[in-house]
Amino acid sequence: MRTTVGIIGAGPAGLLLARLLHTAGIASVVLEGRDRGHVEGRQRAGILEQGTVDVLRAAGAGERLDREGLRHDGIELRFARRRHRVDFPGLTGGRSVWVYAQTEVCKDLIALQLAEGGPLLFEAPALAVEDAATDRPRVRFRQGGTEDVLECDYVVGCDGFWGVARRAVPAGSARVFERTYPYGWLGILADAPPSHHELVYARHDRGFALLSMRSPSVSRLYLQVPEGTDAGEWADEEIWDELTRRFETGDGWTLERGPVTQKSVTPMRSYVHEPMRHGRLFLAGDAAHIVPPTGAKGLNLAVGDVVTLARALVHERDTGSATLLDAYSATCLRRVWQAERFSYDMTGLLHRAPGATPFEDRIQLARLERIASCRAAETDLAEAYTGFPFG
Amino acid sequence: MRTTVGIIGAGPAGLLLARLLHTAGIASVVLEGRDRGHVEGRQRAGILEQGTVDVLRAAGAGERLDREGLRHDGIELRFARRRHRVDFPGLTGGRSVWVYAQTEVCKDLIALQLAEGGPLLFEAPALAVEDAATDRPRVRFRQGGTEDVLECDYVVGCDGFWGVARRAVPAGSARVFERTYPYGWLGILADAPPSHHELVYARHDRGFALLSMRSPSVSRLYLQVPEGTDAGEWADEEIWDELTRRFETGDGWTLERGPVTQKSVTPMRSYVHEPMRHGRLFLAGDAAHIVPPTGAKGLNLAVGDVVTLARALVHERDTGSATLLDAYSATCLRRVWQAERFSYDMTGLLHRAPGATPFEDRIQLARLERIASCRAAETDLAEAYTGFPFG
Repeated sequence: MRTTVGIIGAGPAGLLLARLLHTAGIASVVLEGRDRGHVEGRQRAGILEQGTVDVLRAAGAGERLDREGLRHDGIELRFARRRHRVDFPGLTGGRSVWVYAQTEVCKDLIALQLAEGGPLLFEAPALAVEDAATDRPRVRFRQGGTEDVLECDYVVGCDGFWGVARRAVPAGSARVFERTYPYGWLGILADAPPSHHELVYARHDRGFALLSMRSPSVSRLYLQVPEGTDAGEWADEEIWDELTRRFETGDGWTLERGPVTQKSVTPMRSYVHEPMRHGRLFLAGDAAHIVPPTGAKGLNLAVGDVVTLARALVHERDTGSATLLDAYSATCLRRVWQAERFSYDMTGLLHRAPGATPFEDRIQLARLERIASCRAAETDLAEAYTGFPFG
Repeated sequence: MRTTVGIIGAGPAGLLLARLLHTAGIASVVLEGRDRGHVEGRQRAGILEQGTVDVLRAAGAGERLDREGLRHDGIELRFARRRHRVDFPGLTGGRSVWVYAQTEVCKDLIALQLAEGGPLLFEAPALAVEDAATDRPRVRFRQGGTEDVLECDYVVGCDGFWGVARRAVPAGSARVFERTYPYGWLGILADAPPSHHELVYARHDRGFALLSMRSPSVSRLYLQVPEGTDAGEWADEEIWDELTRRFETGDGWTLERGPVTQKSVTPMRSYVHEPMRHGRLFLAGDAAHIVPPTGAKGLNLAVGDVVTLARALVHERDTGSATLLDAYSATCLRRVWQAERFSYDMTGLLHRAPGATPFEDRIQLARLERIASCRAAETDLAEAYTGFPFG
């Protein structure tokens, strides 16, 4: 089997890259290890930056997003029983974010790819990337019980943090930057109307909490829990009680409860693999970098990567020049490190570290107070939240 | 001996308070443990915020400051061999800072007080504040080998972090917030013209360095050194060599050297004592709070405290209402915590923590890059550096 661009992984990075290449007339094959139902059922992020929405629309994948996605013009910060709204368009000259689950983005892109695009193979796990440093990179994969080889001009690893693509980079050719956190997020989906029309980020002495939503009738809520917590340790009522405590305000606001339909714990990690390229193998999205979810940046970083890569591949096809491909890693990493910084600092702003001192608690509150009282500090947050420019 | 306001300590807080009270017609006595020569020779901070300069001018203590002080309209951030200037007036609507050493402020205020003000007793160490929670607080002090008592309506502790005033607050009536740092600043005074016309804050893998000045012919330079370093461990040439390394740029800039006339190590500490009042005892300046020097906030915080306190004492005298006195602690602490936050975050932005990971190094660089590339982030810094509003 042979194609121009072999894409490993049918998450948002791989699917969007295939779509962008297809609309530019570049052939690709997408290999995905899991079946379609699994891919379309994974609960992941839910916040799309303005730039991500613009890209999806331009790629022809914006129709349902525009119909069902919820435009959000701000978030609420909650601390010391106070509420402070950050007004995105007012602070950024008109930018917003959209609530539209990553899993819905994937469904839309899968439907498009199957209808119009090149091959998208489910239950076809990649086993290894070979000869990445040569002109003829290959992906060994398995399908229907037999092994096969995909020969490519370029291979793109969009197979996430645990994928095989990154393993093809020799240890001596890369540098890894990493941080783990002593807490994770216990997340629930609940059949309850969201108790606030925008996301609420709550800093509380008992730990962070986040109120989000999937639709006008489905709430998505998170609690900071110690690292290694099993979701089963928490009964539904305990979760609601704890959420209620952490979202407490001084103004009588209440949290609506409802049946919990899903419950899981997300670990928190920061990770960057430099460079994001090895020979003709390119890494994109979680295969190259991970952010903690506090800044809602993971999906949006992946989109930035593949937009940059698609542009570079088209440029190479049209001009014969590899300049943009050669700049791919450095171009993406500038944005990646800003997202890493923002995600790290938002995490530090809102989470209670085990053993945090009273001094550190006050510093957190003073930082929140700064955002609530200084337009420049608030603008910095709003600009970062609504999105760093692509490449 | 009896007065309205007994002031312990002839640093900038105590001296300015005495001056402000004098101009308002409120009697005070200042007790200072050291002799005049010692007080006028202490090397301390050197950066005055716009608001501090305005207060000193209004108090009649601005004449020499206006003649000899150096107005600075920006600072330079140096990192990864790059240079980025932060333009204060352009970002803040016209605010600047002044380079004028704290010791010069003290000389000016001492001269004024001795010429026009109430008693200012040198070599008169306070021993204890007594009956602070009653209507008749007293300061026991020693002078010329004998003990005496100063009876007051109010006592103000301006006697610094190691002073006696704070000890009069029962432990159960106060809360202390504290952080120490695993490094300090090795500072030198040198007879060398400053190598840059504005302060340079350098973040380097080997540690922080600061280029400052006292005058057009005297440089003030600092190096981050491990906690507990003795200044004698560093030969002058070693200091110059290390400064040269940490200030390195890619553009041929060089550091001028000259004879080192003073050399000392400043430890780094964050500290807040809440509340800043106990009965009729008020704490101001370093007696109530300490910041690491990175944000140049210590002296300016002290000025804010005594401006707030003088206004409250005048209000009480004029109206009989204790409203402002009762609000003193909360009013000051809002500003104090913003300065604590800024000083802590500036310290974290620029210093290399022992054992810092490569990930943390990159986060520092990404934060600096953010300031250099995002006007909102840069404005946040400029507004904080040039000063938080008084009360």
